[in-house]
Amino acid sequence: MIVVMSPNATKENLNNVVQKLESMNLRTHLSTGDERTIVGVIGDKKIIANLEMEMMEGVEKTVRITEKYKIVSRDFHPQDTIIDVGGIKIGGKNIVVMAGPCAVESLEQVRETAAAVKKAGAKILRGGAYKPRTSPYDFQGLGEDGLKILRQVADEFDLKVVTEVVDRQDIPLIEEYADILQVGARNMQNFQMLKSLGKIKKPIMLKRGLSATISEWLNAAEYIVTGGNENVMFCERGIRTYETFTRNTLDLSAVAAVKELSHLPIIVDPSHGTGRRPMVMPMARAAIAAGADGLMIEVHPHPEKALSDGNQSLTPKDFQDLMSNLGEIAAAVGRTI
Amino acid sequence: MIVVMSPNATKENLNNVVQKLESMNLRTHLSTGDERTIVGVIGDKKIIANLEMEMMEGVEKTVRITEKYKIVSRDFHPQDTIIDVGGIKIGGKNIVVMAGPCAVESLEQVRETAAAVKKAGAKILRGGAYKPRTSPYDFQGLGEDGLKILRQVADEFDLKVVTEVVDRQDIPLIEEYADILQVGARNMQNFQMLKSLGKIKKPIMLKRGLSATISEWLNAAEYIVTGGNENVMFCERGIRTYETFTRNTLDLSAVAAVKELSHLPIIVDPSHGTGRRPMVMPMARAAIAAGADGLMIEVHPHPEKALSDGNQSLTPKDFQDLMSNLGEIAAAVGRTI
Amino acid sequence: MIVVMSPNATKENLNNVVQKLESMNLRTHLSTGDERTIVGVIGDKKIIANLEMEMMEGVEKTVRITEKYKIVSRDFHPQDTIIDVGGIKIGGKNIVVMAGPCAVESLEQVRETAAAVKKAGAKILRGGAYKPRTSPYDFQGLGEDGLKILRQVADEFDLKVVTEVVDRQDIPLIEEYADILQVGARNMQNFQMLKSLGKIKKPIMLKRGLSATISEWLNAAEYIVTGGNENVMFCERGIRTYETFTRNTLDLSAVAAVKELSHLPIIVDPSHGTGRRPMVMPMARAAIAAGADGLMIEVHPHPEKALSDGNQSLTPKDFQDLMSNLGEIAAAVGRTI
Amino acid sequence: MIVVMSPNATKENLNNVVQKLESMNLRTHLSTGDERTIVGVIGDKKIIANLEMEMMEGVEKTVRITEKYKIVSRDFHPQDTIIDVGGIKIGGKNIVVMAGPCAVESLEQVRETAAAVKKAGAKILRGGAYKPRTSPYDFQGLGEDGLKILRQVADEFDLKVVTEVVDRQDIPLIEEYADILQVGARNMQNFQMLKSLGKIKKPIMLKRGLSATISEWLNAAEYIVTGGNENVMFCERGIRTYETFTRNTLDLSAVAAVKELSHLPIIVDPSHGTGRRPMVMPMARAAIAAGADGLMIEVHPHPEKALSDGNQSLTPKDFQDLMSNLGEIAAAVGRTI
Repeated sequence: MIVVMSPNATKENLNNVVQKLESMNLRTHLSTGDERTIVGVIGDKKIIANLEMEMMEGVEKTVRITEKYKIVSRDFHPQDTIIDVGGIKIGGKNIVVMAGPCAVESLEQVRETAAAVKKAGAKILRGGAYKPRTSPYDFQGLGEDGLKILRQVADEFDLKVVTEVVDRQDIPLIEEYADILQVGARNMQNFQMLKSLGKIKKPIMLKRGLSATISEWLNAAEYIVTGGNENVMFCERGIRTYETFTRNTLDLSAVAAVKELSHLPIIVDPSHGTGRRPMVMPMARAAIAAGADGLMIEVHPHPEKALSDGNQSLTPKDFQDLMSNLGEIAAAVGRTI
Repeated sequence: MIVVMSPNATKENLNNVVQKLESMNLRTHLSTGDERTIVGVIGDKKIIANLEMEMMEGVEKTVRITEKYKIVSRDFHPQDTIIDVGGIKIGGKNIVVMAGPCAVESLEQVRETAAAVKKAGAKILRGGAYKPRTSPYDFQGLGEDGLKILRQVADEFDLKVVTEVVDRQDIPLIEEYADILQVGARNMQNFQMLKSLGKIKKPIMLKRGLSATISEWLNAAEYIVTGGNENVMFCERGIRTYETFTRNTLDLSAVAAVKELSHLPIIVDPSHGTGRRPMVMPMARAAIAAGADGLMIEVHPHPEKALSDGNQSLTPKDFQDLMSNLGEIAAAVGRTI
Repeated sequence: MIVVMSPNATKENLNNVVQKLESMNLRTHLSTGDERTIVGVIGDKKIIANLEMEMMEGVEKTVRITEKYKIVSRDFHPQDTIIDVGGIKIGGKNIVVMAGPCAVESLEQVRETAAAVKKAGAKILRGGAYKPRTSPYDFQGLGEDGLKILRQVADEFDLKVVTEVVDRQDIPLIEEYADILQVGARNMQNFQMLKSLGKIKKPIMLKRGLSATISEWLNAAEYIVTGGNENVMFCERGIRTYETFTRNTLDLSAVAAVKELSHLPIIVDPSHGTGRRPMVMPMARAAIAAGADGLMIEVHPHPEKALSDGNQSLTPKDFQDLMSNLGEIAAAVGRTI
Repeated sequence: MIVVMSPNATKENLNNVVQKLESMNLRTHLSTGDERTIVGVIGDKKIIANLEMEMMEGVEKTVRITEKYKIVSRDFHPQDTIIDVGGIKIGGKNIVVMAGPCAVESLEQVRETAAAVKKAGAKILRGGAYKPRTSPYDFQGLGEDGLKILRQVADEFDLKVVTEVVDRQDIPLIEEYADILQVGARNMQNFQMLKSLGKIKKPIMLKRGLSATISEWLNAAEYIVTGGNENVMFCERGIRTYETFTRNTLDLSAVAAVKELSHLPIIVDPSHGTGRRPMVMPMARAAIAAGADGLMIEVHPHPEKALSDGNQSLTPKDFQDLMSNLGEIAAAVGRTI
């Protein structure tokens, strides 16, 4: 950390700052410019992480040099992490596609979708049993019945299951049925839930919060891995901006950023990320070209009858087209699908 | 809802749309322009709330005419709601000030703060026992010990207590100690927690999410009130924008917006809203001038030693100055403090 | 400036950085931590302002300590600047109100408005003769005819005139008719125009860009004052955020920020800032409570017939109510209106 | 347009609305729901474009059904437009790469860069002679000398020239030297300049404003094409969001959006869009996968010595790597480079 003294800080102000830092077993290094003095702070990162210096008299501002997350950082673990989901590898050379309906509505709907996505090449079945919805009057999901449907159908078609946890009390139940537990955007900073997920073994897919910075996102993952569960993958699903044409603004630069800063895999969800069916295909292609390790795609056999997010769901036919299109892009970046 | 057909929609597309709507017991009203047809949808609001039409062929877009929230809306309840917190009225002519440290650190710290804020005129003591922190390495709060300190000190000084819930499992415990339960920005859309809070009797203060729209915020409150707890107050605490000079961008226009759309009271938190001590005073004044029903202010006896958010905390002396300054502003808008 | 070396920077990398800085006559100061070395850069601010170091090998990032603007900063000129507009003082104890229609439409319209706003206490007449409109098919303003109307009517009612420049070629013409030249949000970084405005004598009102940071705004003002025209006032008019209920998000914390960082006056425009008539009054009050030096308000005798922005215009009666309401707020913050 | 009456609008309010619309030669269509009446407005689009109805009593809000831009819309011109820049086609099957330094600094610098980018396959040389810079103390460009250098070097290497116009008075001069005139982000809504560019023949590259919506961007292009110059291409260069890790947030979904809404070509600038050298390559790949018609890349022979934006400039070697990498991606989406 660097403490920038204000131009009219007194000698006493500076002494107090240095004394406070030294009393915490930190070393200081002064750099005296024409207008102001800058204090470099050296020592235990944990102590520095919790320092609050701006209230001291004469301090203009402080600048943090290092991020607080550690275990998720690439500095800490230079090689890419590969997560094994019952034999399916996420983060390796292969690109993994997760597909299925936004919400589980019925056994028939999920079975029809699973048949289609399996045939087209998806390895993991997605579907929400617990739905976080803006309004209490919207469809809230089938709950455990939905979980049962997902598991049964996934087993029928030899698929894995990813589904969302919206409450930490549900974790043991969902763990029974799912292969990957998804943390939705609204819960990215539900820290109690993250801590609980750190204590289980199953892989976690951590969606980016609606307006989370890359740094906050990595820190949220740090909550999980510090608990002991290092099987965390990220999922970029669009951020909130001023633009209203799309539902969210899909930030593919986050893929490159996460790859630079962390060793954990990253998936892209162009369905929620755009909210518009015609944009799913180009954004799916672009995600792979940007370096994503996988895709999460909404598919519904009859989107016009979907109970949620029909506007962004692909039909099985659309999905088939998409999948047959991705192979060449994957090859162009040295991956397979 | 209005369904806008695309310019090249066929007669059959239009018929399908009308048929689908009528099959759901909704009435339709066609308006045929030079280029496109617009379908007005009339009928049960709950059915319309869940309609998804954009996937149907020939549909260009849909436009919602009415918001989904009801009970929290001013249309539903034209008079201002006044919440009674053990004799303290929130939402009436009087402006209520909540003050205290960001986090409870020790009995001494809280007692020293409480003495000061009580003397200056605050009615409610704030302080976090459970702290949602970006990094797992940051101070996470004292938990139940913190709650005990808050209650004991508040009782000593005849103050009420507001404190944050970060996990719905903690609700029964916090209910024992606190007079108002606060939902933090990161949990504004933790819908399971909101539902649980709808089942208790104590008043809830619902902070605005980091990037929540006014509409999402009102819908979040609707989750609580539909559960049966109508004692909900809002708290504007700054939104996330591109600006980096302040910690958040305090949106005082939200006060006017909430007053227009809802009958529930609204509090403003200029401490988190700006993150800078010198801005707390002008923003506190402005909040009252904009029509806020109260303020939430961070005060710490020794901000330079605070374990969190020292940069935005007022000293007891600052707080005293602030309070003695607010009376005239309150009077100018027909209120007292 | 501080240059942060990466943890795996070599000794040679560090030497190269130091050498480059020293070759530019800058002094360096090394601070060696456990993981990385930090280089403090000391010397001529102009040279430092243009430094680009991040491309050098071994450099992780650079941190600027000081802002680039100087003349507009409060450090440079601690006392508040008061601008004299033909006897009307802006920035002093008195709060100045500018009012009038969004666009000049006719002599009758402006005259009717001017009579009303003068009577209510406004000192300056606003009105657009050149309108920057999103679509080429929207009304673009009356041009010079509009300027003539403004001048004639202002003289009739002993008012001053503020009007917008949208092209630097128009400056000499507008200078003839107006007392204050306004730079609109879309031109805040039209640097050639700012340079030209620096060469005239008349006061300039610089609106904040749609998504301009406080720092960019102050730097834009620096373009004008470095040309020689120090009569610059700011105008906060709302920034672009994700919120759609209001037209823009009026950022009143910008008032406090500008007051802290600069000596120049700041005006608030709650009409554009909210885009909603019922919000103009509470936001006008709040602006004054926050410390603004004046207000800019849209008034139209018949808003329902306005050629632009009718939705946010007050009627003369609304404006009268607003003005009679502001006196007490002004008094509460030690000002008069 | 649709006019939504408020639930408590009177019959007279409704009559007034209808009368006003009919007096403007517009037809109306009433749709009466349980709570409110909705008025469909049919007729001349130009009249509707300028309608302001929300000030009328009883009107709750209005909803626009159609965008204001026409000539740039794909509805108006379903086939992709291909722009011919002296034999180089932009918008066809071939992907065009524009490369060069951020700012023209010297003949040697441009010549060295041009040699490298030509060799690697770029067709168009970029470079700024007039630089819009946040601070007046930053390097402002070489002006006409810079234009001369660009032209001379481009001719030597058989390249075309794209360069930025920052003031409409410079258009005739720049037209002499450049093959494509670029409108920068800060001037996207400099409407007078857009109008002037509509009167010339040379192609225009219109960068997206810092926080411009897709709709505003298309309307800005409409300003140019209504003047008569239909050779307009868009350039996505990142938008402003809350994220600070990158300089801007490169919005690749804008590529898909523009392709859906307009027939004009779109280029992507990953250099400004990310501001970080390591992200240029993945984002360049992703842009092509998303459907972009070309790329704009900053290349500097010695980025560590660049007078501006060195941090985001590729070295000639980096650029060579990038180019040799793009062919496969282009092929995967049916294009060549």
